[in-house]
Amino acid sequence: MSATFGDRLRLTIFGESHAEAIGGVLEGLPSGMVIDEQMLREHMRRRAPGRSTIMTSRQEADEVRILSGVFEGHTTGTPLSFMIQNQDPHIKDYEPMRFVLRPGHADYTAYAKYGGFQDYRGGGGFSGRLTAVIHAAGGLAEQLLGQKEVTIIAHALSVGDQRDCSFAERQWDIQMSQEQIKGLQQRLRQMPIPTVCEERSEEMAKAIERIRREKDSIGGVAECGIFGLPAGLGGGFFSSVESRLAQLCFSIPAVKGIEFGAGFELAQMKGSEANDVMYLENDRSKASDCLQKKLRSIRHATNHNGGILGGITNAMPLIFRVAVKPTPSIGKTQPTVDLRTMKEMQLMLKGRHDPCILPRVIPVIESGAALVTADLLMGRFGEEVFL
Amino acid sequence: MSATFGDRLRLTIFGESHAEAIGGVLEGLPSGMVIDEQMLREHMRRRAPGRSTIMTSRQEADEVRILSGVFEGHTTGTPLSFMIQNQDPHIKDYEPMRFVLRPGHADYTAYAKYGGFQDYRGGGGFSGRLTAVIHAAGGLAEQLLGQKEVTIIAHALSVGDQRDCSFAERQWDIQMSQEQIKGLQQRLRQMPIPTVCEERSEEMAKAIERIRREKDSIGGVAECGIFGLPAGLGGGFFSSVESRLAQLCFSIPAVKGIEFGAGFELAQMKGSEANDVMYLENDRSKASDCLQKKLRSIRHATNHNGGILGGITNAMPLIFRVAVKPTPSIGKTQPTVDLRTMKEMQLMLKGRHDPCILPRVIPVIESGAALVTADLLMGRFGEEVFL
Amino acid sequence: MSATFGDRLRLTIFGESHAEAIGGVLEGLPSGMVIDEQMLREHMRRRAPGRSTIMTSRQEADEVRILSGVFEGHTTGTPLSFMIQNQDPHIKDYEPMRFVLRPGHADYTAYAKYGGFQDYRGGGGFSGRLTAVIHAAGGLAEQLLGQKEVTIIAHALSVGDQRDCSFAERQWDIQMSQEQIKGLQQRLRQMPIPTVCEERSEEMAKAIERIRREKDSIGGVAECGIFGLPAGLGGGFFSSVESRLAQLCFSIPAVKGIEFGAGFELAQMKGSEANDVMYLENDRSKASDCLQKKLRSIRHATNHNGGILGGITNAMPLIFRVAVKPTPSIGKTQPTVDLRTMKEMQLMLKGRHDPCILPRVIPVIESGAALVTADLLMGRFGEEVFL
Amino acid sequence: MSATFGDRLRLTIFGESHAEAIGGVLEGLPSGMVIDEQMLREHMRRRAPGRSTIMTSRQEADEVRILSGVFEGHTTGTPLSFMIQNQDPHIKDYEPMRFVLRPGHADYTAYAKYGGFQDYRGGGGFSGRLTAVIHAAGGLAEQLLGQKEVTIIAHALSVGDQRDCSFAERQWDIQMSQEQIKGLQQRLRQMPIPTVCEERSEEMAKAIERIRREKDSIGGVAECGIFGLPAGLGGGFFSSVESRLAQLCFSIPAVKGIEFGAGFELAQMKGSEANDVMYLENDRSKASDCLQKKLRSIRHATNHNGGILGGITNAMPLIFRVAVKPTPSIGKTQPTVDLRTMKEMQLMLKGRHDPCILPRVIPVIESGAALVTADLLMGRFGEEVFL
Repeated sequence: MSATFGDRLRLTIFGESHAEAIGGVLEGLPSGMVIDEQMLREHMRRRAPGRSTIMTSRQEADEVRILSGVFEGHTTGTPLSFMIQNQDPHIKDYEPMRFVLRPGHADYTAYAKYGGFQDYRGGGGFSGRLTAVIHAAGGLAEQLLGQKEVTIIAHALSVGDQRDCSFAERQWDIQMSQEQIKGLQQRLRQMPIPTVCEERSEEMAKAIERIRREKDSIGGVAECGIFGLPAGLGGGFFSSVESRLAQLCFSIPAVKGIEFGAGFELAQMKGSEANDVMYLENDRSKASDCLQKKLRSIRHATNHNGGILGGITNAMPLIFRVAVKPTPSIGKTQPTVDLRTMKEMQLMLKGRHDPCILPRVIPVIESGAALVTADLLMGRFGEEVFL
Repeated sequence: MSATFGDRLRLTIFGESHAEAIGGVLEGLPSGMVIDEQMLREHMRRRAPGRSTIMTSRQEADEVRILSGVFEGHTTGTPLSFMIQNQDPHIKDYEPMRFVLRPGHADYTAYAKYGGFQDYRGGGGFSGRLTAVIHAAGGLAEQLLGQKEVTIIAHALSVGDQRDCSFAERQWDIQMSQEQIKGLQQRLRQMPIPTVCEERSEEMAKAIERIRREKDSIGGVAECGIFGLPAGLGGGFFSSVESRLAQLCFSIPAVKGIEFGAGFELAQMKGSEANDVMYLENDRSKASDCLQKKLRSIRHATNHNGGILGGITNAMPLIFRVAVKPTPSIGKTQPTVDLRTMKEMQLMLKGRHDPCILPRVIPVIESGAALVTADLLMGRFGEEVFL
Repeated sequence: MSATFGDRLRLTIFGESHAEAIGGVLEGLPSGMVIDEQMLREHMRRRAPGRSTIMTSRQEADEVRILSGVFEGHTTGTPLSFMIQNQDPHIKDYEPMRFVLRPGHADYTAYAKYGGFQDYRGGGGFSGRLTAVIHAAGGLAEQLLGQKEVTIIAHALSVGDQRDCSFAERQWDIQMSQEQIKGLQQRLRQMPIPTVCEERSEEMAKAIERIRREKDSIGGVAECGIFGLPAGLGGGFFSSVESRLAQLCFSIPAVKGIEFGAGFELAQMKGSEANDVMYLENDRSKASDCLQKKLRSIRHATNHNGGILGGITNAMPLIFRVAVKPTPSIGKTQPTVDLRTMKEMQLMLKGRHDPCILPRVIPVIESGAALVTADLLMGRFGEEVFL
Repeated sequence: MSATFGDRLRLTIFGESHAEAIGGVLEGLPSGMVIDEQMLREHMRRRAPGRSTIMTSRQEADEVRILSGVFEGHTTGTPLSFMIQNQDPHIKDYEPMRFVLRPGHADYTAYAKYGGFQDYRGGGGFSGRLTAVIHAAGGLAEQLLGQKEVTIIAHALSVGDQRDCSFAERQWDIQMSQEQIKGLQQRLRQMPIPTVCEERSEEMAKAIERIRREKDSIGGVAECGIFGLPAGLGGGFFSSVESRLAQLCFSIPAVKGIEFGAGFELAQMKGSEANDVMYLENDRSKASDCLQKKLRSIRHATNHNGGILGGITNAMPLIFRVAVKPTPSIGKTQPTVDLRTMKEMQLMLKGRHDPCILPRVIPVIESGAALVTADLLMGRFGEEVFL
């Protein structure tokens, strides 16, 4: 089913960038959960455009209007639905573009699939704007996770050639205390381009600014860590944690790759290097007969598998990276075809585009991670895990 | 649902490596399709161990026994179910290993999820042996695709440091004629380690042999191309072609990364480089009013997006790569923990392991691609597309 | 999944009677379908209250506001979402009732499931008001079916002791011409209480009026016929046509039974009576070699199986009946319990209730039948069946 | 999906009566559950033919062979798969019948859907034999339920004109102690035709014997009670308890109607009669502040809603009835059509048929009820409810 994601926590998504609204139906939230609308507004602001000069100057309010499923500040237990009104779409702006196939966009494929009936304005149903729905749902999932000790952090691992430190570098991911993790999250969420090594952010911003002036765009890699997950979440085969996160991440426009743990580097490693060997944590080793306690006293020395073995979490930080392609909308002239005239032409896109979409994809990846995490926890423990 | 994959063509998988059998239920095959059991046997042989010295010398017959859904050589239209009997499992071999957590395997996570009730023999329900089920189902899907002009080819893009040429190199993927593609497929399917640049295969075999003598293992990257797909398959968001292929590939044990088209390289590219610009094919440009014909006369000059834009195929070759980690079972001594004694220990695995699992993963990836392709075609055109 | 229904045409439903809105997301409509909003408005009016003295005098506009999925009057192919704003809910009216468990309503079970967080106003998430969403979606499905020769008609088979003629009586269902069927539909859709035997309608209205004056309510049976379906729709086991229609009908509040064809009467029949024997239609019997043509020249002499054998349509009219219980809201005094005081009490409900909900359930059943029919047709022929 | 049923406990079914095997894949059983194979064998015997003269004298071993998911007598947590080998099918017996459309069977519809490729021998994929798979899965579900205080009992409410007492009669359903319920279950499970009023069983057997001598068949009604369910199971709309049970029951061949509680009788009742009013149980009424305890001290005086309100259980016995049509296979001569010759003909079926299938449907309904009950409990409480 294309518009629905998840097993115990299910998001159904709808909308087009220039339709009246975009929105979602989130099913599976337990009843009685407190919804903090102010926190949700701040959450939405993290994805919104216009936060810095490196982003499009378009203004989108992205106000989440809850239609049902919340009563007197608590979830009722029935589907929580919400809409985000689209702003004045200036329809006329788009009319001349109707038959021009923008390179790197879904214009050609939309014609192939929908036969010309797609809403061609902006990205229509393919617009990155729809990630606001994933982001809103993820914000609710994060509120649900609030009571658990799970912390989700994504950052810009690279923008073009500029590179931030990875979580895995110097094994930070497995050495940070919970306090340090919370502190890192707090710091990163303030930054327009969140980077672990603070100074890298400015370099990236400069690189993006350069690209903007070239009327071009640039890609990047986001890295996400989910810290504090218990072991035993996920499952074999088609419901592996990797399968679920990948399914969700590839629904974010512009994502073209995903890897877990050491990912593609594992392909060059030997088994003796790649295997995450286990040892006993001394202070817990006189463990009881309880299997779960025994397991908690066993630690992995490395995390090349990114917290997942056999599709199931092993209580190590869950680390994954996604490749984000450069924004296809650029100011440079590009050759293409006009479907009406069936003539080749030179296209010069006007308008305010993000020269690098990565900074706005990062919060969406965190939100996707929150959705999957909440779903995994409920799949294992039922909704009682949150009560 | 963890054990079921697909929308119109649905595979439900079952089994454990040392249970009585593994098998699957394949639902959605149209009635009246001819099942060629001999072709299926040959197909199974491509994944089977023991084909060369670089593989485990274990013998597994992998005989697919169809239990229902086929009558007088044709599919009936009801679920096609099949089982693959497991061989004599030598249970005693495994007993001493019951509480020893093998690094890089799913032993720790299986204890966390199943509380010690998992079938610990071999990989149990996590065993790569279950990919035989995906492979069998993919073999049936490939027979279904037989009548269409779709050709699926995977090869070893790298084994450790050894590297084959990519499909994308010198734009082979978009320049090969259909005949050349068929020829390439035929050649590669004869090779124990299929490589596009023929001589690379032997180098890889030597590298694997060296690793085997070191009692170690090595990872690799598989690249897969699906040639001949029409435009318009797939869909937005959670049912994007990338989402579906990723969900399936991450259910193959040892896969830790996937990328489409230029993948992670896109993160370093500019929009002006990455965008696949379009042009008119001269001989078709006086096209009719038919939209689909018009679209077919438009070509993409490059294929950085790997044949998918907006989650939908654009009639270019669909190219993706998966990262395969080194086999976790190695002969070298590794530190670990015994769950019964709760003591650290040194583990030395005996037995015959694949020093590089990649050559056996490659046909499974082709099979997964066949399953997804058949599903996509039926999702778009109904089962009539195969009649 | 509780909020989503259907396979190829999927409706996700949301809302509560006194939340801001109710609505739905309809996925699977082919792109390019013309949406006639005026026709939809008239369709909605058929379920609306206040059409006659036998209905509640409450006014509900039930205006369907399409949020996405329609552009320039045609479906785009992405999910069609819509909302129906709830009217001023007069919240204060409901406050004193918060802890009073209304007999026959879902108050007790809502407390058990949602722990007191349910929206208690009106029926909240259990309200019959949500059938407006099914009705709206069914109206769209009926527009989709418009081009096919399928006609859906439901009528009041009984209200209390008052009984209309059944479709099956005198074998009308299998003897009516397509023209007669269309005429019957047209006539019934004008009637506040649609009855096949016209004069029965007034008798029923009188009976309902008597019940209203008694401050009581009464149940009834709706009968629905789907005429013009081709053979071969549906499938075995869990996707039998009966399974699907039943799943949908039991999501309509107040429905407590469903039967197909002769239904419960079959339990008293002999095989020799119940079997629908076949014969050849003379003018077609020199049929070609085409199997489907052959099948079309074979007719069933009776229709005790209601158009379904083995879960699959047999081209006879699909006939089913649903039992609708009396409206639980009555003006008479009833004993119950107050959950706050935990004391027994006498409850006298005020407000304007439907003394018989059947007349308003009838159009919803037609709408549900339209949803299932469109889904079945697409499952068999793909969306091309509507192009 | 036609071959899969359930949400948390999912059964995928496969097979044809004369294929090599029928079987199922049951996913969602928690790991560590003890599987009592002897108990399962006895459970299977209850559905098997040949238990009395009123049944077909065919012998079917119906031996459930577990292929995976059980290790050392416990479930592993991965899918439990099983097959039931089909006996020697005497293929030649069926050949002459290939093109003869048996009235009341799915022959005509199978041709329409599968185009002649269906396995025509016996009922093929439509055979009642496949209910052995539902029965086996239900047997496992019942073992899972064993530790809970849920008791499932079905009986023959009627066979033709012969009628047993209903559970609802004299309010037995709500007055029996748990001990009486267990005793009743035990007694009924010994009877070839289980009846609440013991003497009715023999009358029914005589009626069936008469019908058998007439070479005809007869229908009946089964009534099922699920006793001991907690309140709060199920959900709104498409996942109402009624929707789920109906979806499953209509996948049993020959079932043509289902009703809950007073069912179709509700259509003739007034609200003041039909509403199940509530009162306080004295000894519990000084209840604590705990909502769930409060709810447990409130009782319903009647059970016209059959234990379900708003799609959710209310802790009253869940009562439903299904109408079973007469076995379509009868020895009497019937007119029909031969598809090869396209001529009308007189058909006289040979072989050993059940003159009344009801006694063999009854255990299957209990099994279906067990599957749904286990699914509902896990949906509410997670698999922990069984640990």
